[in-house]
Amino acid sequence: MEYKIKNMDEQEFQRKYLNLKILKGIQTYLKSEGEEESVVYPIRVPQELLYQMVKLQGAESADKLVHHIFTIGLSIWSERLFQESFGAPENLKAFIQLMKERESKEK
Amino acid sequence: MEYKIKNMDEQEFQRKYLNLKILKGIQTYLKSEGEEESVVYPIRVPQELLYQMVKLQGAESADKLVHHIFTIGLSIWSERLFQESFGAPENLKAFIQLMKERESKEK
Repeated sequence: MEYKIKNMDEQEFQRKYLNLKILKGIQTYLKSEGEEESVVYPIRVPQELLYQMVKLQGAESADKLVHHIFTIGLSIWSERLFQESFGAPENLKAFIQLMKERESKEK
Repeated sequence: MEYKIKNMDEQEFQRKYLNLKILKGIQTYLKSEGEEESVVYPIRVPQELLYQMVKLQGAESADKLVHHIFTIGLSIWSERLFQESFGAPENLKAFIQLMKERESKEK
């Protein structure tokens, strides 16, 4: 894949820029085990799973498990987003360089 | 791995029995895309991800994405639970057979 970092159009730049922000937020979230950069959001979870876990191991363990399952999904999803947006660490570096150049031009 | 389905102790039987119930619930949940056998549960999600998605694609898309991420994790986690509890479809069949035998004895 040829990666046209310098020639990307504005729309593509903005898309990558937003994805990078999202990825950085996810990284912080995962490192802090959901303590940082997070908001509470209601989701639907499998009833039997939740009930059995609360019954067997208590509410705190059930909470941990639901978050554990969510972070498994999040790790995989964010890896895909990274691959789709940048493909390789070098492309990310090139993009960050481009961001810096744009920022210094704007000043 | 030798699978001692007939000789398992009561504790092991109960553990597998509960895991099977959980797995069945998850399967129904996944098939119905969270519509069936689900309860609403608050989780912490990455803030930037949620905000950007709501901004870019609206609240409904953000909701779908959060659920999509959760189901990725759930598919992987339940596959692991299945492997750990039964290992192979034949063992599951043998266990279901054992369940039926116990049920008919209890009647």
